[in-house]
Amino acid sequence: MPSQEHMKAALQAYVDGFNAGDPAAVVALFADDATIEDPVGKPPITGREAITEFYAGNVASGAKLSLDTPVRGSHGNVAAMAFTVEMPNMRIRVIDVMTFDEDGLISEMRAHWGSTDVES
Amino acid sequence: MPSQEHMKAALQAYVDGFNAGDPAAVVALFADDATIEDPVGKPPITGREAITEFYAGNVASGAKLSLDTPVRGSHGNVAAMAFTVEMPNMRIRVIDVMTFDEDGLISEMRAHWGSTDVES
Repeated sequence: MPSQEHMKAALQAYVDGFNAGDPAAVVALFADDATIEDPVGKPPITGREAITEFYAGNVASGAKLSLDTPVRGSHGNVAAMAFTVEMPNMRIRVIDVMTFDEDGLISEMRAHWGSTDVES
Repeated sequence: MPSQEHMKAALQAYVDGFNAGDPAAVVALFADDATIEDPVGKPPITGREAITEFYAGNVASGAKLSLDTPVRGSHGNVAAMAFTVEMPNMRIRVIDVMTFDEDGLISEMRAHWGSTDVES
């Protein structure tokens, strides 16, 4: 099972890679067959090709991620973070929950946000 | 499916009931057969009796909950909140993810925190 330190470092690398405009650095944190449910309640996307396309688009939008409070670990293979997505005309408050596999890669990402978490 | 407003109000009622020293108000938010995994990675507890005992003990400890950032909803039946548990000699940073049933009651609670989220 990945350590809490590993999981927290991965989530920080996710934020840093996103904000550096480096979607490849973000995608490298995911397992080949990972799933992303963003937002929770929408059908998930699966696999490296779909995930690469997802982050290429999101990073290109110019959005930046700002942690609202330190990343949380767990006693299992899950870590979570609360952050705000800052866009030119909008902010979205999100809590991401990431599950890790035995290799320390993200196997599942679930993004908790809804219309009431969007401010324009 | 419960509305985002309903789920966010339930999570606020959870915090308020806990801080008011009223475990019954917290337990009333849960379905009869709900599960609690606190922390994630520990075997869950199930059912009203176990949940009542769990919150009676936690509330009696004198711990207080402080939201770190607004509660998040989702496009599904899940809401999440990042908060800090304040105890006389300790603080724990937690992210709770709550799943709701068709009646608007909490069917699953998962608390994300680990040893690296505890400050004494």
